[in-house]
This record gives sequence, C-alpha cells and structure tokens, in this order.
Amino acid sequence: MAEKPKKPQKLRARLPRGLADRGPAEIAATRAMVETIREVYERYGFEPVETPAFEFTDALGKFLPDQDRPNEGVFSFQDDDEQWISLRYDLTAPLARYVAVNFDNLPKPYRSYRAGYVYRNEKPGPGRFRQFMQFDADTVGSASPAADAEMCMMAADTMEALGVPRGSYVVKVNNRKVLDGVREALGVTDDARWLTIMRAIDKLDRLGISGVRQLLGEGRRDESGDFTKGAGLDVADILLVTSVVEQVEDPEEKAAQIDLRLRDSKIGQQGREELEEISRLVSASGYGPERIRIDPSVVRGLEYYTGPVYEVELTLETKDEKGRPVRFGSVGGGGRYDGLVSRFRGEPVPATGFSIGVSRLQAALTMLGKLDTRPEFGPVVVTVFDRDRVADYQKMVALLRADNIRAELYLGNPKNMGNQLKYADRRNSPCVIIQGSDEKARGEVQIKDLIEGARAAAAIASNQEWRDSRPAQFSCSETELVANVREVLARHEVKWGR
Amino acid sequence: MAEKPKKPQKLRARLPRGLADRGPAEIAATRAMVETIREVYERYGFEPVETPAFEFTDALGKFLPDQDRPNEGVFSFQDDDEQWISLRYDLTAPLARYVAVNFDNLPKPYRSYRAGYVYRNEKPGPGRFRQFMQFDADTVGSASPAADAEMCMMAADTMEALGVPRGSYVVKVNNRKVLDGVREALGVTDDARWLTIMRAIDKLDRLGISGVRQLLGEGRRDESGDFTKGAGLDVADILLVTSVVEQVEDPEEKAAQIDLRLRDSKIGQQGREELEEISRLVSASGYGPERIRIDPSVVRGLEYYTGPVYEVELTLETKDEKGRPVRFGSVGGGGRYDGLVSRFRGEPVPATGFSIGVSRLQAALTMLGKLDTRPEFGPVVVTVFDRDRVADYQKMVALLRADNIRAELYLGNPKNMGNQLKYADRRNSPCVIIQGSDEKARGEVQIKDLIEGARAAAAIASNQEWRDSRPAQFSCSETELVANVREVLARHEVKWGR
Repeated sequence: MAEKPKKPQKLRARLPRGLADRGPAEIAATRAMVETIREVYERYGFEPVETPAFEFTDALGKFLPDQDRPNEGVFSFQDDDEQWISLRYDLTAPLARYVAVNFDNLPKPYRSYRAGYVYRNEKPGPGRFRQFMQFDADTVGSASPAADAEMCMMAADTMEALGVPRGSYVVKVNNRKVLDGVREALGVTDDARWLTIMRAIDKLDRLGISGVRQLLGEGRRDESGDFTKGAGLDVADILLVTSVVEQVEDPEEKAAQIDLRLRDSKIGQQGREELEEISRLVSASGYGPERIRIDPSVVRGLEYYTGPVYEVELTLETKDEKGRPVRFGSVGGGGRYDGLVSRFRGEPVPATGFSIGVSRLQAALTMLGKLDTRPEFGPVVVTVFDRDRVADYQKMVALLRADNIRAELYLGNPKNMGNQLKYADRRNSPCVIIQGSDEKARGEVQIKDLIEGARAAAAIASNQEWRDSRPAQFSCSETELVANVREVLARHEVKWGR
Repeated sequence: MAEKPKKPQKLRARLPRGLADRGPAEIAATRAMVETIREVYERYGFEPVETPAFEFTDALGKFLPDQDRPNEGVFSFQDDDEQWISLRYDLTAPLARYVAVNFDNLPKPYRSYRAGYVYRNEKPGPGRFRQFMQFDADTVGSASPAADAEMCMMAADTMEALGVPRGSYVVKVNNRKVLDGVREALGVTDDARWLTIMRAIDKLDRLGISGVRQLLGEGRRDESGDFTKGAGLDVADILLVTSVVEQVEDPEEKAAQIDLRLRDSKIGQQGREELEEISRLVSASGYGPERIRIDPSVVRGLEYYTGPVYEVELTLETKDEKGRPVRFGSVGGGGRYDGLVSRFRGEPVPATGFSIGVSRLQAALTMLGKLDTRPEFGPVVVTVFDRDRVADYQKMVALLRADNIRAELYLGNPKNMGNQLKYADRRNSPCVIIQGSDEKARGEVQIKDLIEGARAAAAIASNQEWRDSRPAQFSCSETELVANVREVLARHEVKWGR
C-alpha cells in the first residue's frame, strides 16, 4: 500500500499579545469621539497634520529608554542603508521633527492636531496595549502662558463636548519650574533622591498629606505591612515641600506658608508667576477652579517638560482591581516642552502640547454611558427562495439600495429558508424580503418585520399559536416593495450611520 | 586660553525615504473620500472591522516574497519570545486571520470593510510609498458568483459616488479559471513559459492585439529598438489565446471563435459559466457593459486568486513620464481567494474581496477636480495690541468660540501689529479683531475684514490712497462683537469643516 500523502500542517490563527481587533460598535464609538474632539480643536483654530508611522530612531532621540538597544521600548529595524528606523511611540517627537523640516513654511505660532496609533514594545497587561490611539494638539512657537492656558481650556471644552458633566472632570495645572524651585530650596543635588521626593509628591491623591509626609521623611508602612523607604528629609524640609503641594483654598494663608528659601529661588518664583498668569487668563474667560485648577502636586514623569504641565482627570469613581472605589484618574495631559524642536534647530523653539489617551478615555465614556455601544441595525435581507431566480432577488436589492436603504442579498447556501432567517436575526436586520413562486405569479413579495416579530413572539404562548398567526408578515405588490420597506423602517425608527 | 566647550551636535530633521507627511488639504480630501466609500459599503450591508498593524509573520504566510528573509518585502522584527512579527502589507491576509480566529461568532456569509495603512519594505519611487492607505471590502463564506457580482456593482457605485462620471471608469471582470483553461488547452506545463504568456496578455491594453500576437510568438521589437523575446507559440496556439482575450462585441461571433480545445477544458468551461452568471446578475440590476464589462485580458498578478478577478480602471487620459497620453489605469481590484482562510481552518472557506488604492485614487480624483483642495478659511484672529490686556483679548476669543466661531488669540510676540496681520493672512483668516486703548476707552473693537480688504487692495492705485481709505475696517461696540463677526462671515459665505 502506498503511503498516504501527509496532510499539510494547519496554521494556527492568533494575534501577537498586546494587540486587539476591533468590531463595529467599538469602531463607531471611536469615530464619534474623534469627530467630537476634532470639532473642538478646529474651533480653537488648530489645523490637522499627519506624519507617517515611522521615524529615524535618532529623531525620537533621547526619549528612547535605551539608545544602545533600539528595540527596547520601541519597535525598530534597520533599513537597507543600515540606518535604524522606529515606529513612533507617541505623536510629539514626530511633530517636533515635522516642524523642524517645515519650519520656514509654517505659520508661527503653529497650532496643529493629529490622531493616530502609537506603538510601544513593552510588556502588555490588562488595559495596556502595544498599539493604541492618541489624539494630540500642540502649539509651537509661542512662549506665552496664554498658549498653555488655551490648552487647558481646550481640554475642559473637549471633556464637556464628549458628555463628561462639569464637576466630573478637572484640569490640573502645575509648573516644572515650581518643583525645580523646591529642589533648589532643598539643595538636593542627587538625582535619585530627587526622584524619591517627586514620587512621594505624586502620591498625594492616593495617600493624602500624612502619607506624603511619611514618604518624604523616614518612610511608610502600608496596610499589607510592606515598608517603603522615604527620602529622609528633616521636619523643616518636609514642611517646605508640603507647603507647596498641599491645596490651601485661601490665597493669603497660602502666601504666608511659603518658605523663605522658596522665595529665594528665581526659577521657583518664575514658575509661580506663570501659574498665576494662567490662572488669571482662564478665569477671565470664565473657566473657574471647578474646571481648571492650579495643583502643585501634579508631577508628570516625562523628562522633556520644561514649564507648565497639565493633566485631565476624571473625578468619577470606579473600582480598582480589589473592588475598592478609586477615582478613574488621568485620561490625558501635557505640558511645555521647549527643548524638543530645538534639538533639530540649534535655537530655542518654545512649544506646548496636550495628548488624550483615546482608548482610555473611551473606556471611561463607555462606563459613563456616554457612548452609544448598542449594535446598529443590519441591512434588509432579501432571501433566496428559488435559486434560479437570484437575478430577480438581486434586482430587488439594487432597488432598495438605490433608495439609500441598507440592503443585501443572502449569499449563503439558499437550500434552507430557516437558515436565511437565522442569518437575518444575527445581522440584526429590521426586515427580510421573501418571494416564492406563488408570490411571483401574483406579482407580490412578502415582507417579514423582524422587530415586530420578536415583540409578538415574546407575547405568544404556544408554537401552534405562533405558526397560525404568522405575526408581522405581510404581502405587497412588487412595485410597492421600496415604499413598504420604508414604512417598516419608519415605524421602528431605524436609522443607520448614527 | 581655555578650550571652548564643544557645541552639542545638531540633529538633522528628515524622514526616511518612501514616507510622506500630510497637510490639512490632503487630510480633508482623504477624509471626504473615505466617508463616501464607507457610505456605499454600508449601504451594501458591509460592516466595519479593524485589525492591528502587526501580525505574526507566518500568518501573512506564503504571500511573503521570501520566507527565509522575513524583512524582505515586509517590515519585520523578532518579538522577545523569538517569534517573527511583521507589519501588514495588505488588508486581506489580516482579515483572513481575523475570520479564522472569530469563525464561530461571525455571521456567515460575513461582509466586512476596513480602511487602513499598509506597509511595504520596498524600493520607493515616484508615487510609490512604503506606507499607503487601502480601503478593502470582503465577503467570506459565499462561493456564489452573486458575491463577486456584488463586489463589481459596489465598485461601480463607489466610483460614481466619488464623482467619477459614468463612462470615465469601467469595472473589468475576468476569471482565473478561464486562463487556467487556456493553459490546459495549450498544454503548457512550464511555469516560466506560462508567465511569459500571461505577461503578453496583460499588455493588450498598451500594445493592442498585434503586439500581443508578437509577444505570444517570436517576440517584439519596440520603437526604441529593444527586443522582447516571445513565448514561441505557433500560429494555432496564438489564435487560441487571442480568441479568448480579444474583445468581440457579437456574442455569436465570439462563440464561433472558441477553439475546440477550450471546450474540452472543464475548468475553462466552468470559468466561462461563472462569468456569464456574473454578467447576467449585474445586467438584471441595471449595470450594463459601460459600467461592468467581462474582459478576458485581465490578468491580476497575485498568486492567491482562484476564480473571478476584477479591476477598476479610470479610462480618462493623463500623461506618462514622456508626456504621451495614457489611460490613468487601475485604481483598485480584487477577486476570489478561496485558499486564504482555509490555511487556518483546514476546510474550504470561499471568499471574495476588493481593494481600493486610496492614495492612487485620490491623485486621480484631484486631477479630475473632484476633490476640494482649496485651503479652508482659518480662524478669526484676535490680535494683542496691549500686552497687559491679554486676558481681555482671551475673553473675546472665548466668546467667539462659545458661539461656534473658529477663533484664536495671537500667541506670538505682540510687539508688532504688522506681524500679527501677516500671520492672519497666512492663516487665511476671514477677519481680525483689534482693540487699542482708544477703542477700549470707548467700549469698542475694530473688525478688519481681510477678504474685503484683499479685494479692495487689488483695486486701489497708490499706497497713500490705501492708508487714507482703511478699506474694510470698521468699529463696533464690544457687546456687539460676536454679531458683527457673524455678519462678516455670512457676507463672505465662510463655512468651516466642509
């Protein structure tokens, strides 16, 4: 007996980890969100620009986690001329490159926006993907705090346009210079120690002022008994730090608290003045602290911020992984990055920008019930009763489509009408069209209203009763097909492309 | 003298070759196109789906040019678990993977569409990019020629929805089985020789039937004197091939021409029957040969097509690189690929799909004047006359925006009013707002209508006259600012977000 030929090995269908496919409801929700953000940004005079997914790795530059291993953190490959190319991991570095290339042809200040996917070669986790969408806005060429103030107002307007009620979000503003002033006042020269202090400040929201005090001092033991070593500051230094980061409502009390050492720091003073200017500008335009609030505890990690930093937080509560209530937290942020374009130009180019994490914000809006994620109605399905008459059925479909009705011909095996109806149900079709030979002879078609049918079915007791009543199915003349389908759609308020 | 510290080396801003940035006009044009295509596809009952930019390299599979060098043709890198990952180079292979993963949960037949960037690691050239956009539609799970017929009608509807007049495009349909029948009838076993024959057929459009005859026979010398060796077929075989691919209007004459050897080829016969069925279906829906035409000379290169293939051609003329008139040519195409999903499933899964080259089509529509590429009006610019009163100006901007008027504060150095007006011109602003201390004292603002101003300037003879007339500039009460700006916008029919 001859050997049987080996069956070709079947390939396993799967997606690399940290990546996800997206279906119709999710795509529609993102579309709606992006359109809304776009409208707000356009109203602020920002114009769109788009850069490709790749850049030369050196153009992403020092913002790479590790320059010696270009594939660490970002996805990189060597081009055939040996140059390293990377997929963008944010939309800011590519914008800086774009502005540098087109510097002489751009209006200055240059306001622009862009939405797009970014890529991170990192360990994925729950809610952490290796491809996700950002929506950025940047103003390049203005050193004015008015540019930062505008970003904050735009962020607030965007949240409200997306349906987040006033009071459920806040734009918090700080200034890196204020923190630099604290460092100067403390005389901290060691970078690692300064990082410990910054990390302590960053935990104000979660641990409260007493927790921050512990982390600035000896250290803190949490509920589980784990001990985190502190920054080892003395009492006076701890007071200096907390006097800056703690929210004190009364401005006079606040001023009185300011440590004399802070007053001596020129950079700190400058930072406070810029914050006051931003505060003044947004107030003048009617944006009070319920929308935009100065908060000196805001620490944004990225190294390139040089002045004001801002963060948009959703203040509504959600549950953490242990079921405890926590604030939803940050859905976007940004700040002033005066160094990023300068790398290419060899002259200072001030810039400030703001980035929304689209996927994260989408999760929040879905939770808030602000995104319509119900499945849309599917098309009207014209069934195939008699397989020799596919051309006739196809013609009905063409007539419906010509009247802008979403419609399709059943393209599966037409043997079994039950399967065709099941398919229509699965597609969430509002109605199906049936024409057997009897109807054809009479010049008629049957329209089966699936929405009404489902309602009626819920009310009918027995199978026999169901069969006898044939609920929500009626005949009409072939020539009246489109008008009758229109009527069914109108009756159920079927709207597509919402 | 101490050595001067070295200036840090300036980074060169540039984009890797074969990639391009996109500005506002181009982005708006693509948006408009994609929205139009989407509407047509939705009307046909197709639903959106989106896959990420990456796939496991083996999921792209044999469609890679060279499996041993995963970076050839596609952009690839090794994940930290050593598996090869590649950027998608089309939208079909990822869809096949998606369908295989979600097979049991999808309605079948499954109609879907998606637009997205694809990436090719190839030598770029004029009009050839390493990142470009495709817009695909696919029907998986139907072996019926009705599925192919639908694709062709949808392609025709899309062209007309995009503004291409009937008669300026044609959807050409062929069937790989017809060509397989020709091969069987000729008895060609050598793949290279068959490729030469296919290449000759593919040149029918460009060289006409006599050129194809030469290439099927001994060979052909072109105008420059270059000789292309032919396939070496004898006269009877050449006649057999040309009888298939030549357009003959009269169906009876066509039938009479069919070589007896072709009638014996079962696969060829099947191919012709499928084409007839498609022809019958599209005719029944009113799509005549001026829109969808059977054309047996259509050869689509990709290896995976197994049945009907189709190509959308723009028949309008453009110039080739030597200035000679040529047809614009193909802007999209597709066909039946029954093998692509089967690789994962180990069972036959019929599928047919269609892909539009968005960038190429966009170039064609721009040439046709069907895309609005005029720059949009920029925002109303509120200038900064008195730098201590930025908050006042900011408030005016906020008022305009609250009334949905695109507006911005001038954020550059306010020293020079001339620069502010130049900036507004550059932004294509319809008008600017100016408030000096005199106006402030009177509770007034100046509105300078830049559109009217440009018109008047063209008509005014001398500089002195210009200065005296201050054309198109008027004062109004501060409280009437928004209403007056609205009037200027209405007068010039300024619409944003078109």
